[in-house]
Amino acid sequence: MIVVMTPHSTKEQLEHVVKLVEEMGLSTHIIHGTNRTVIAAVGDKRMVDKTAIEYSPGVEKIVPILSPYKVASKEVKQEKTVVKLQPHGSGIGGKTVQVIAGPCSVEDRSQLLEIAHQIKDAGAVGLRGGAFKPRSSPYSFQGLAEKGLEYLADAREQTGLAVVTEVVTVNHVERVAQYADVLQIGARNMQNFMLLRAVGEQPKPVLLKRGMCATMEEFLLAAEYIINAGNPNVILCERGIRTYEEYCRNTLTLSIIPAIQRVSHLPIIVDPTHGTGHAYMIEPMSLAAVAAGADGLIIEVHPDPEHALSDPGQQLTPSLFQQLMHKLVRVAQAVDRKV
Amino acid sequence: MIVVMTPHSTKEQLEHVVKLVEEMGLSTHIIHGTNRTVIAAVGDKRMVDKTAIEYSPGVEKIVPILSPYKVASKEVKQEKTVVKLQPHGSGIGGKTVQVIAGPCSVEDRSQLLEIAHQIKDAGAVGLRGGAFKPRSSPYSFQGLAEKGLEYLADAREQTGLAVVTEVVTVNHVERVAQYADVLQIGARNMQNFMLLRAVGEQPKPVLLKRGMCATMEEFLLAAEYIINAGNPNVILCERGIRTYEEYCRNTLTLSIIPAIQRVSHLPIIVDPTHGTGHAYMIEPMSLAAVAAGADGLIIEVHPDPEHALSDPGQQLTPSLFQQLMHKLVRVAQAVDRKV
Amino acid sequence: MIVVMTPHSTKEQLEHVVKLVEEMGLSTHIIHGTNRTVIAAVGDKRMVDKTAIEYSPGVEKIVPILSPYKVASKEVKQEKTVVKLQPHGSGIGGKTVQVIAGPCSVEDRSQLLEIAHQIKDAGAVGLRGGAFKPRSSPYSFQGLAEKGLEYLADAREQTGLAVVTEVVTVNHVERVAQYADVLQIGARNMQNFMLLRAVGEQPKPVLLKRGMCATMEEFLLAAEYIINAGNPNVILCERGIRTYEEYCRNTLTLSIIPAIQRVSHLPIIVDPTHGTGHAYMIEPMSLAAVAAGADGLIIEVHPDPEHALSDPGQQLTPSLFQQLMHKLVRVAQAVDRKV
Amino acid sequence: MIVVMTPHSTKEQLEHVVKLVEEMGLSTHIIHGTNRTVIAAVGDKRMVDKTAIEYSPGVEKIVPILSPYKVASKEVKQEKTVVKLQPHGSGIGGKTVQVIAGPCSVEDRSQLLEIAHQIKDAGAVGLRGGAFKPRSSPYSFQGLAEKGLEYLADAREQTGLAVVTEVVTVNHVERVAQYADVLQIGARNMQNFMLLRAVGEQPKPVLLKRGMCATMEEFLLAAEYIINAGNPNVILCERGIRTYEEYCRNTLTLSIIPAIQRVSHLPIIVDPTHGTGHAYMIEPMSLAAVAAGADGLIIEVHPDPEHALSDPGQQLTPSLFQQLMHKLVRVAQAVDRKV
Repeated sequence: MIVVMTPHSTKEQLEHVVKLVEEMGLSTHIIHGTNRTVIAAVGDKRMVDKTAIEYSPGVEKIVPILSPYKVASKEVKQEKTVVKLQPHGSGIGGKTVQVIAGPCSVEDRSQLLEIAHQIKDAGAVGLRGGAFKPRSSPYSFQGLAEKGLEYLADAREQTGLAVVTEVVTVNHVERVAQYADVLQIGARNMQNFMLLRAVGEQPKPVLLKRGMCATMEEFLLAAEYIINAGNPNVILCERGIRTYEEYCRNTLTLSIIPAIQRVSHLPIIVDPTHGTGHAYMIEPMSLAAVAAGADGLIIEVHPDPEHALSDPGQQLTPSLFQQLMHKLVRVAQAVDRKV
Repeated sequence: MIVVMTPHSTKEQLEHVVKLVEEMGLSTHIIHGTNRTVIAAVGDKRMVDKTAIEYSPGVEKIVPILSPYKVASKEVKQEKTVVKLQPHGSGIGGKTVQVIAGPCSVEDRSQLLEIAHQIKDAGAVGLRGGAFKPRSSPYSFQGLAEKGLEYLADAREQTGLAVVTEVVTVNHVERVAQYADVLQIGARNMQNFMLLRAVGEQPKPVLLKRGMCATMEEFLLAAEYIINAGNPNVILCERGIRTYEEYCRNTLTLSIIPAIQRVSHLPIIVDPTHGTGHAYMIEPMSLAAVAAGADGLIIEVHPDPEHALSDPGQQLTPSLFQQLMHKLVRVAQAVDRKV
Repeated sequence: MIVVMTPHSTKEQLEHVVKLVEEMGLSTHIIHGTNRTVIAAVGDKRMVDKTAIEYSPGVEKIVPILSPYKVASKEVKQEKTVVKLQPHGSGIGGKTVQVIAGPCSVEDRSQLLEIAHQIKDAGAVGLRGGAFKPRSSPYSFQGLAEKGLEYLADAREQTGLAVVTEVVTVNHVERVAQYADVLQIGARNMQNFMLLRAVGEQPKPVLLKRGMCATMEEFLLAAEYIINAGNPNVILCERGIRTYEEYCRNTLTLSIIPAIQRVSHLPIIVDPTHGTGHAYMIEPMSLAAVAAGADGLIIEVHPDPEHALSDPGQQLTPSLFQQLMHKLVRVAQAVDRKV
Repeated sequence: MIVVMTPHSTKEQLEHVVKLVEEMGLSTHIIHGTNRTVIAAVGDKRMVDKTAIEYSPGVEKIVPILSPYKVASKEVKQEKTVVKLQPHGSGIGGKTVQVIAGPCSVEDRSQLLEIAHQIKDAGAVGLRGGAFKPRSSPYSFQGLAEKGLEYLADAREQTGLAVVTEVVTVNHVERVAQYADVLQIGARNMQNFMLLRAVGEQPKPVLLKRGMCATMEEFLLAAEYIINAGNPNVILCERGIRTYEEYCRNTLTLSIIPAIQRVSHLPIIVDPTHGTGHAYMIEPMSLAAVAAGADGLIIEVHPDPEHALSDPGQQLTPSLFQQLMHKLVRVAQAVDRKV
């Protein structure tokens, strides 16, 4: 950490800050510049609450040098993490771009089974579907709960697809983990630290969605919570951020893919459905995500989007999904990967 | 709701949409404009998932007419809600601007008692302090938990201040409600709908912080969850939003005060501490909040900010807080209120 | 346009608004809903300043139905615009993805010629280079001015590449147009309406960069200014927007590509250099842009980025550029286009 | 400036960067930390294009220590700048909060004179009004041009109010300066550097509006352009930034007032009209701005907002303005200032 003193700070103020820094177990180097004096604090500063120093008289600002995440970073683990999806062991984070698909909410057993077969035939390896739905409005459909989990398990039985479903509260973790192969943490819960710890304390892989206005640092710190609690199988998922843009529901920021790959060993997939909010954008943005290096995609597919009970306007039909998969294969090959 | 058809939509497409709208229990009026045909759908549309129609062929966009919140709105209740704070019954939402103060985290019993007396003497009516702290990094101080709640209750005993503390998970609601007078829902949990429902099902008032990138509509829908679950005593709290601005930790948007007051009957207070992230901004922004019509303030005060265990850089000392209270009294009078 | 009245608006207020709307030359339809009365105003409303009505007593809000741009929209012209680049007539907006490359600033004649040959050999059709540089700080390098334009013209002479360079003020338009084949309007000038009109009144194509926080609507309205002034040859360029994200200089939003293509006939290219601000992100984001359907790319290439006089950290070396072009060819083929 | 090396950087890379830094005329201090090696570069770094170093192999990031603005900063000039408004010499930046008011556009001579008298009587010291209007749509009213300037000069003659009007292009600077007492640079031109220099080369004070998504640093750098060109009389004006918020046209960020006052000697005023976009928010946000320490306000007032030719929905009537001025007097007193 670098502490920058104000231009008119006194010798006493400098000494006070040096003392404060050393109380934290760090050693100090003082550099007298042309316009400013700075103190370089040396040591492992991740555990220190740096703002204390910022408040001291004579301090202009402090500048952290180390990123605050550790076990999620490449510094600690160079080789890429490949997360295995049960029941068939397809890996996310390897050469193959994996596709997870399915309806926004689980609504009906036979419909779910039908769609599971369709996406499986089109090349997907995972089945997504919400049993517990977090909805902005209390008047919206909230999901089938336990019943939905059972249907998802039936679909896995029949198709071999890995089941991915959201868990919204600590109390549900155990129950959802009985049915699901991957536990999803939704964007709204990315900083629900109790829940992060709870999914970190069980062994099933976790699909962690980026919060609606999370920085990359906060995103990786959320992964850090899960890994720290004992579960290294974290799949990151970009799903768009909130900006002023009006033509899309969220602004999908694909440049986070190379950014994450530069600093972290965790795989990253993209959700073009929530990341755009419009069915017509899913295909171009899916192709773009793969071209940019994404390790996978999670896409909403519904047999009859017009009558879907949640988010109908942004779900693909099975035939549009199949068409997308054909194009994905070609783009993946063009960047030396496969689907 | 208004459905706008594309310029080249067909008669069949129009009829299909009309049918879809009517299936929702709404009646339709068709208006043929110069460039567009629009369908006005009449009825109470809050319960309808409007995006289904958006997906239909020939539809350009749909435009909601009603706001999605209801019980939080002035349409349902014109007179302003005044939330009573126990033990002494001071009301938030009336003529008096109420001030809640205290340390970011509860750290130490005697320190907490001391500060409680100081803020009480300065004119505060509530004592805030975190016992369970949601922190971005797993390496930061996470709070004293139950011990912290006990200290807070002791401080209330001695001072008569209402205790305001955060609840971070459904499992804690009952326990926290035993000690606290007001349950705080933090910004990160504004859309933790399970938690909203849980605090809605108990009787203590709820201080609901605005999410870091919540729209006003989402903020009021979160309040709607609580009220719908049975608890009408919701205090809204603006605490800054995330923007690109670099000179502050969050961008405090005071214009939400008149905006909320125009559409909702709920009281709204301001948190200038998290809303700016810098101790030197707390005074001017507190005065501004009161001038803009805020019903109260919640401010972090710590006897020794330099050595605080969380967020030291943004907490006021008791003497700066006292000085602020003197100025607040004057500004409140200038806008015909009192502190 | 739809005018929504407040729940308690009076009959007189309604009549007043109807009168106001009709004074604008629009006809009105009144619809009495369950909770609201709305007025549908029919006619071509693009020319009307709608906010007048918003202010009238009893009005809750107004909702525009038509987009405010016209000649830039597909409603007026269905077939895609292909902008020809001189001297060789390559078209932007057709099947071929066109690449424009070159240094941020023109710095030196022989260096520019060298790089022009290199990018030409790698497959580029246009040469970019700033002669007049708009810089945030008055202390930064401001460009070679006229001298820079001459060097660019020399490079075209030798390579046949179309010259693309920025014009920053009305007074320079004529002079820059003598040298350049395409006039670039920078992001900071996207709403410099005098300048838009000036480049609209001359015949050379215009590359219009999206403003740093422009909406899609404002972006197309800026194009509308140019087309309205007489010049239909507008190339749109996405170059990232400002958000809270900290890992990139700007947030590149590729979903604007399908969004623009849905409503406008204008070609759209992508600037991954400014759109990310980091050299290591240029390749993945270029590939992603082409996969998403971009009509071209504009990329900064410098023979010695470390010693470049402007934006060194985000320029590619010629060999990295060549490598990128090889990959672009493959991705373009995968989406049935070529480079 | 601090250069942070990557964890696995080599000795050669370190030496290379040290050489690069020293070529810039800076001296270096190398600090070997636990996890990172950092280089502290000492000297006046404002003139250096730091990104060159960022690109060097082995560099993780660079951290600037000095702010990039100089003459706009308190380091160079401690005492506050007070800008005198002619013809009567009222100062902006002193103890009195100055109010500038008037219509969005100048539309009609007698109407302008009437409103000038009204705002003068209510206590304003400046008259604003647009003669050249930058409008997002080419179909909107663009102003009366020269005629508008003459009417403004007439109004000054009759009332003694200082005339504040916008200049939109370099070519108009001389002409507008003949009529106006203060030249306004609009938000869209905050980074029109040619224009900044042009208004810096003439002696009339400049009211510089913050760009729609400008950082504080960019805002002060824009002021720096003007001061550097020879004109120290710059009045900063906060007018809201673009965010995702939907209840207002812009998000007014009052916390920039204390932030600017901490680092710069320039006066800062607030535009609550554009800063909110809604007439009903002007009063609370004006009071809040003064409570937060603003040196003045610029407010749109129109005798008949419903029929105004531009931005009718956000202009106050003269009687609402008068009422606001009464309240402003009280709030100003409460913070030891006057109106």
